[in-house]
Amino acid sequence: MGMIGGGSGAFIGGVHRIAANIDGLISLHCGAFSSKPEVSKASGEALFLPADKSYTSFEQMIKTEAGLPAEQRMDFVSIVTPNHVHFEPAMMALDHGFHVVIDKPMTFTLDEAKALQQKVKETGLQLLLTHTYSGYPMVKQAKAMVREGKLGKIRKVYVEYPQGWLSSLSEKDGNKQASWRTDPSKSGKAGCMGDIGTHAAHLAEYITGLKIKEVCADINIVVPGRLLDDDGAILLHFDNGASGVLIASQVAVGEENALKIRVYGEKGGLEWRQEEPNTLLVRWSDQPMQVYRTGVGYADPLSSFAAHNTRTPGGHPEGYLEAFANLYRNFALTLQGLQNGQQVSAEALDFPSVDDGVRGMAFIDTVIESGQSTQKWTPFIV
Amino acid sequence: MGMIGGGSGAFIGGVHRIAANIDGLISLHCGAFSSKPEVSKASGEALFLPADKSYTSFEQMIKTEAGLPAEQRMDFVSIVTPNHVHFEPAMMALDHGFHVVIDKPMTFTLDEAKALQQKVKETGLQLLLTHTYSGYPMVKQAKAMVREGKLGKIRKVYVEYPQGWLSSLSEKDGNKQASWRTDPSKSGKAGCMGDIGTHAAHLAEYITGLKIKEVCADINIVVPGRLLDDDGAILLHFDNGASGVLIASQVAVGEENALKIRVYGEKGGLEWRQEEPNTLLVRWSDQPMQVYRTGVGYADPLSSFAAHNTRTPGGHPEGYLEAFANLYRNFALTLQGLQNGQQVSAEALDFPSVDDGVRGMAFIDTVIESGQSTQKWTPFIV
Amino acid sequence: MGMIGGGSGAFIGGVHRIAANIDGLISLHCGAFSSKPEVSKASGEALFLPADKSYTSFEQMIKTEAGLPAEQRMDFVSIVTPNHVHFEPAMMALDHGFHVVIDKPMTFTLDEAKALQQKVKETGLQLLLTHTYSGYPMVKQAKAMVREGKLGKIRKVYVEYPQGWLSSLSEKDGNKQASWRTDPSKSGKAGCMGDIGTHAAHLAEYITGLKIKEVCADINIVVPGRLLDDDGAILLHFDNGASGVLIASQVAVGEENALKIRVYGEKGGLEWRQEEPNTLLVRWSDQPMQVYRTGVGYADPLSSFAAHNTRTPGGHPEGYLEAFANLYRNFALTLQGLQNGQQVSAEALDFPSVDDGVRGMAFIDTVIESGQSTQKWTPFIV
Amino acid sequence: MGMIGGGSGAFIGGVHRIAANIDGLISLHCGAFSSKPEVSKASGEALFLPADKSYTSFEQMIKTEAGLPAEQRMDFVSIVTPNHVHFEPAMMALDHGFHVVIDKPMTFTLDEAKALQQKVKETGLQLLLTHTYSGYPMVKQAKAMVREGKLGKIRKVYVEYPQGWLSSLSEKDGNKQASWRTDPSKSGKAGCMGDIGTHAAHLAEYITGLKIKEVCADINIVVPGRLLDDDGAILLHFDNGASGVLIASQVAVGEENALKIRVYGEKGGLEWRQEEPNTLLVRWSDQPMQVYRTGVGYADPLSSFAAHNTRTPGGHPEGYLEAFANLYRNFALTLQGLQNGQQVSAEALDFPSVDDGVRGMAFIDTVIESGQSTQKWTPFIV
Repeated sequence: MGMIGGGSGAFIGGVHRIAANIDGLISLHCGAFSSKPEVSKASGEALFLPADKSYTSFEQMIKTEAGLPAEQRMDFVSIVTPNHVHFEPAMMALDHGFHVVIDKPMTFTLDEAKALQQKVKETGLQLLLTHTYSGYPMVKQAKAMVREGKLGKIRKVYVEYPQGWLSSLSEKDGNKQASWRTDPSKSGKAGCMGDIGTHAAHLAEYITGLKIKEVCADINIVVPGRLLDDDGAILLHFDNGASGVLIASQVAVGEENALKIRVYGEKGGLEWRQEEPNTLLVRWSDQPMQVYRTGVGYADPLSSFAAHNTRTPGGHPEGYLEAFANLYRNFALTLQGLQNGQQVSAEALDFPSVDDGVRGMAFIDTVIESGQSTQKWTPFIV
Repeated sequence: MGMIGGGSGAFIGGVHRIAANIDGLISLHCGAFSSKPEVSKASGEALFLPADKSYTSFEQMIKTEAGLPAEQRMDFVSIVTPNHVHFEPAMMALDHGFHVVIDKPMTFTLDEAKALQQKVKETGLQLLLTHTYSGYPMVKQAKAMVREGKLGKIRKVYVEYPQGWLSSLSEKDGNKQASWRTDPSKSGKAGCMGDIGTHAAHLAEYITGLKIKEVCADINIVVPGRLLDDDGAILLHFDNGASGVLIASQVAVGEENALKIRVYGEKGGLEWRQEEPNTLLVRWSDQPMQVYRTGVGYADPLSSFAAHNTRTPGGHPEGYLEAFANLYRNFALTLQGLQNGQQVSAEALDFPSVDDGVRGMAFIDTVIESGQSTQKWTPFIV
Repeated sequence: MGMIGGGSGAFIGGVHRIAANIDGLISLHCGAFSSKPEVSKASGEALFLPADKSYTSFEQMIKTEAGLPAEQRMDFVSIVTPNHVHFEPAMMALDHGFHVVIDKPMTFTLDEAKALQQKVKETGLQLLLTHTYSGYPMVKQAKAMVREGKLGKIRKVYVEYPQGWLSSLSEKDGNKQASWRTDPSKSGKAGCMGDIGTHAAHLAEYITGLKIKEVCADINIVVPGRLLDDDGAILLHFDNGASGVLIASQVAVGEENALKIRVYGEKGGLEWRQEEPNTLLVRWSDQPMQVYRTGVGYADPLSSFAAHNTRTPGGHPEGYLEAFANLYRNFALTLQGLQNGQQVSAEALDFPSVDDGVRGMAFIDTVIESGQSTQKWTPFIV
Repeated sequence: MGMIGGGSGAFIGGVHRIAANIDGLISLHCGAFSSKPEVSKASGEALFLPADKSYTSFEQMIKTEAGLPAEQRMDFVSIVTPNHVHFEPAMMALDHGFHVVIDKPMTFTLDEAKALQQKVKETGLQLLLTHTYSGYPMVKQAKAMVREGKLGKIRKVYVEYPQGWLSSLSEKDGNKQASWRTDPSKSGKAGCMGDIGTHAAHLAEYITGLKIKEVCADINIVVPGRLLDDDGAILLHFDNGASGVLIASQVAVGEENALKIRVYGEKGGLEWRQEEPNTLLVRWSDQPMQVYRTGVGYADPLSSFAAHNTRTPGGHPEGYLEAFANLYRNFALTLQGLQNGQQVSAEALDFPSVDDGVRGMAFIDTVIESGQSTQKWTPFIV
């Protein structure tokens, strides 16, 4: 793995490295950790990289590595920079034959996303988009139960993502995470909706297998002085006739990272909360609610997709880093299989891809447009 | 108390009687429990009423009681019939000098509600609208904390009310409760929105002290063959600039009566769930979340409004019937005070009134109109 | 009902009155509310009793009422005084032909308890001991599931009852509840173990249908200056070979009234918490945990014992007062049935009786003895 | 790191490897994964080790590695075998100058534990005992709050560890984990008490800083045909006069890994549950309960010990593997510091050591002895 971004002071770069480390399948090979050469170099040292594996720019890294013999070069790049530095390194990596891991939202604009989708299609390379939350075992279980028809036809989807960390104008207080996420020149046309709204939308579509067909959005800048949305609520219509609500807010003071989804079908409903991720509540019309738990052996066992993404027995909680690691592990297993000409299991192939990235960028465009419209419904068109 | 409706087989009539009984302040004096004379008579007997106190119609009851000497007649009527039989007995009772307790939604139409409001104003009589949930001590506490400015200016309100009991077409299976609630000739122009949406809207306005200014509603009939809405979601704008979401559904299969509200201000947020009503979660930007509990003695004590509506010490859970009883108790204390020419405490006066009933009917009209509109926002005008 | 004790300032008297009121089956007929005549008189007035129905002593009340014609006298007495004033009025009431409701622990000594048991047997009168917690619907459900063998043979019982209200020497600060409960001359030989330990022991035996066979107790006075135990933990052996633990403490600072029981059998386990009483968790060896809820209609319905003790549909929480009212209601239904020569249902007959009171007093004697013993096990003999 | 045990089919070996991987500070250098050479070799290959780094016995590994130049040999061994194969490799490793990571319970007998303690003292090498649960950030926070006196003098400690996985005789069904744990020749003189009782005891002493002074144990074999205890409950007396209860059971059917501890002092109490490890409940006598959460920035910040052991911001749950990784990370930071002659921080030094291992073995001896005694109290002497 060659990392782009993630130098000291960054949050998500460290998360990516842990996620890549956990299963011993991936090693950090090189990095262009910062646009500042000395930061990149220092970061590489702190990560025990040989001096010549800390590059001073992603261009240098990609070109240099591409010129090395196959067994000496990185297998893929992992792009953990702010949104406005996603597209260029991703395209360049693909152009030089490297697979790509990229943080969401995938690009700065929808057009870039589509260009990337086209490139992936042409090159046949793999792209992993790190929608972390779809890596949780109980999210996999939820998806499996919907797919197997256990809930019947889906009628309602409520997904919410309240956070409180932007309740005040912390971007002016030197909070690096807040700073770029609230800056239109780095984050893109959306703030909250790009940062966490896309996660919520992806989770809803991932679990239900449905597509959002049209939206009605109320998009707000709540904290005075902020330049991008920090809050919003969206009515959803899905392609099967189901309806729903998506809430995303970064001004829900005191909330941490309270992503939660509820899905109701004709026969049953389910509920999952990211902050207690090893529990999946399953409700029935005429039976007591059931509490499904990660890693427990039931007579009617958990889905193979849940089991494949679990490392420990029941009651040994897995968390955010393991969910993130599941994305990396499945990506690595897929690359391994492709390299060895082996069949890759459906479980390993189940990671968010460039197509999800395109939908995410379209989601941003659509909800921002809807937020500005006086019409109730805005179609969600990719 | 003279009861109108609530004969055997009814649900809410029994609840009203328990609520009136609990504190020993109110006794059942007479009733017109059913439009079927034999049912009314049998109900009266089962309730230990003398035979001459079971009337065969509300008209007979009101007229007869009005003709009795003051110390022998009922003090007020309690109307627990389906919505289409609210207005007439309420008007007649007021016209004959009786105070009124009435179930929500207050009337069949907004016009009736306004007529009732006018009549109450003219007569100076009291009207209690049984929005049960505002009777809970922790709801009172929430309201007090908002009013005292503990949360700062309110920014966000999320209120949701998922139920699952109408997930199938149970109105065709002889479910009496389902039957009239889904019948436009008995329920009015709304189903779910009238039955539980009004509760959610009232709770939001009650706690925050804000008024809904405009709405954007997605109103649905989910179960095929149903005639009235059984589901909906509404984007809310409040008069102070806050925004929010109201969810009400009766097809959220497996849910019981899961009314929940979250309010976030500049400084703090709070969360209350009806199904565990003795807990109020209070979140802060820079302090651990606090768990307020009914009846516990804190150094900074619970609001006098919470304390006044609590009967037991901490850890002795009070529930729905006590919340309902709080409405009756405050109504009774108010009548008592008025009769005795005493000052009535602010705590006792704090019960939902005819004005809330008018807003509830306007809410129904507004959200149904919005649901049919292609415009995003529909003003909420009373 | 004629009440003994429960004048102004008392806690449990008010609870008894509410419990008696709720269902409209019982009315307060008279009272000897206090040993101070003026307090008794004032209490009677506040409760809307005629002046001649406020007696100045229980002796006067019992004798006077016994002399009245049957249709004018009270049906039963309710004794809500501190422990040292239980036995005398109870015996006198029984001797004069009145049924008895009595608070736990039943008497001051085990000998008194046995004398009461003998008297009840001789007179054929009914005695209700107010072990409130066995009145909860989900406790009834738990008992039913054990009895039906759903859990298999019972192996483990964990019951705990932490409270924090005696964490400091509040009996010196004028806390009336604390004052008599920590006074050996009023409370008896045990403090915490009599006040709440007996509840825990009763709950364990009630749900499991087992009897405690021997105990090993660690009984403590934690707060310096206190005269009676305020804390203890007890290892339990049951008559079927099961073992368990009973914890009771009044110095678990910050706890409210956190009675909780877990029972595990060969096939399944269950968990119930008094502070969220409408939920019963049921665990299985090879199925997801199930969450049973009061008042919900399942395909395999809740026990008739649970249903009989429930007033509202699912999601409308019932609490402590309703549990207490269930005791009164079942007692009233039993008296009614006996008076009318009708068969009393098993559900109505299911209330704690004089035999439970004797076991409670034996529990106190046994655990206090065990606490002083250097031997590990002390037999529980009644 | 050189691993002893942990070949394919083992549970805890994989956990150790993940824990070692997470932070990129430790790499798997070699292993003697199984006493079967072919299993060891295959395991090494699956872990991407060079062929010459898969040894066929721990003796071979230790001797060979000890003979290599310093920069080519492993830094420490990690022993993840069943209990009866702990002592020999640990002693041999220490004798050859290697630091040791070892699973709990540390040895087969208390004498072995003391010998190991002596050896560690003599050699000055480090030994990490993997009491995982003390690696959780909120456990660190709990310990810090006790140490800072926030709770006042500790009065009560309740620690419980119910599991259900040995509810039936699964050791006869080919469950490898069950098989050795219930075999006295591999597990030692205790089953449940060694496997999980030691964890509970360690957690209690770790958080409170107190030492258990005497115990009164009820130790059971619940499942017929089993040879070692699968259940027990223990009354505890601590050296400061506090008392408590320790429950450990592997027959609490349906429970997963429900380790939980509550500690009450004069001023406050705290509660932590392993299955939701990022939450610490803190109760006060006169303030609402507070909910402390991992990784959240409070005005009065979380302890440096909690912060040091946290990788992600609030709301991004960390779990069992991260707690385990914290042990390894702190061990690695300590070795690093010692190697570099740097000061090691108090936070890094805070990992369970050989002294905890000796107390664990003494705990086993003491509770088994107490379980067989007719005397109530058995002194806990190391």
